[in-house]
Amino acid sequence: MTYCVGLLLNEGMVLLSDTRTNAGLDNISTYRKMFTFETPGERVIAIMTAGSLSVTQTTIARLTEAIEHGDENSSIMHAPSMLRVAEIVGNMLGQVTHEVRGKMQRQETGVSASLILAGQRADGAMRLFLIYPQGNFIEATAETPYLQIGEHKYGKPILDRVIRPETTLADAEKAVLLSMDSTLRSNLSVGMPLDLVVIENDALQISRARRIEAEDPSFQKMSQAWSEALRNAFQTIASV
Amino acid sequence: MTYCVGLLLNEGMVLLSDTRTNAGLDNISTYRKMFTFETPGERVIAIMTAGSLSVTQTTIARLTEAIEHGDENSSIMHAPSMLRVAEIVGNMLGQVTHEVRGKMQRQETGVSASLILAGQRADGAMRLFLIYPQGNFIEATAETPYLQIGEHKYGKPILDRVIRPETTLADAEKAVLLSMDSTLRSNLSVGMPLDLVVIENDALQISRARRIEAEDPSFQKMSQAWSEALRNAFQTIASV
Repeated sequence: MTYCVGLLLNEGMVLLSDTRTNAGLDNISTYRKMFTFETPGERVIAIMTAGSLSVTQTTIARLTEAIEHGDENSSIMHAPSMLRVAEIVGNMLGQVTHEVRGKMQRQETGVSASLILAGQRADGAMRLFLIYPQGNFIEATAETPYLQIGEHKYGKPILDRVIRPETTLADAEKAVLLSMDSTLRSNLSVGMPLDLVVIENDALQISRARRIEAEDPSFQKMSQAWSEALRNAFQTIASV
Repeated sequence: MTYCVGLLLNEGMVLLSDTRTNAGLDNISTYRKMFTFETPGERVIAIMTAGSLSVTQTTIARLTEAIEHGDENSSIMHAPSMLRVAEIVGNMLGQVTHEVRGKMQRQETGVSASLILAGQRADGAMRLFLIYPQGNFIEATAETPYLQIGEHKYGKPILDRVIRPETTLADAEKAVLLSMDSTLRSNLSVGMPLDLVVIENDALQISRARRIEAEDPSFQKMSQAWSEALRNAFQTIASV
């Protein structure tokens, strides 16, 4: 399993992914699920992945290959708009999913994967998309300023209560880390380390990228402080 | 969908269920999912249901019929132990599920249901079981003092942080209502009104049973206070 979350805020975009992959409970590995592409000053793109590793790795590898060939129709670094980038990524994901499913169908084993795509081009707006296994996609808006893939339920309540387009980037980083913290506690197949990426509005490059390891003292402290704060908040509520 | 939660605490058992059932998003109804049986001073039993209404209604109806016939092997009000009650309920659920599935199989439509069973007999301990569609079951223990059926994810983090065997009944009622509140916010197929039942240890009867309607002012107040408290707690946490 996986948990990835992306926020589209007035000040910028905040992206967080875990790194655990598993094939059964007895085969657990760490793989990066956050991929960034940038031509500073011209465009910045980040993709987070959830689902079958064979699908997501192949999709990212082919997207990377296509960048080298430099064609407007297939390279996300040459596409004329973020909408076109979403279409290229969606088409690639749909095609790879279809191919891998073809190989799997005699085993009656399903594969699927979904992606979060975030990016901005010069003279364009920041855009955040969720791309489905079939390649179609939806986009974050002011009413729904965040998108999640993977194990999204445990970490949703905090986002619903805190995230608004005007939320500051500092608060947003805190919120996605707390959202991840709730998920890590409840689903063993989501695991440390974490990859956090911040793309400030109009920066047209990755503003901050950080890997947070399991033993990171500030993350551990935040996690404990949140447990404590929740228990205190609980005590302040009057009974019904 | 459904959300039901049961707690097994030193002071007693606390049970909460919603009442929404749906066949598709355009066919929503209210049905009780909390069923209580008692011979005050001798035994008290509560059953909460999740899953296909045709299965859960038939199961409860047959269990109720069997009580009238008064046989130790089939009546939950005459069985000599709570373990035997769990077996009777599990066997009935498994049998009804099997029968209904038989009718459904040509349509390739699945049915399934699960139950939470709580009860105590004179001279016995309080026991809390989760019964699976096949009729097998697990039991709450001091390490895992709560059981959930239905849409369990949104409401789990608060239970994990607050519920211990020594939690007071007042805190426990508050915790299950907040757990339900998080679920109601995030899943439209879980809905008001709610049924709350408390069985105090050795009371051998329903200590409190209460239906909480959508417009209940104290529940609304608690829900708002919790949102406020969560936002305040969020502000107290230092950023990472």
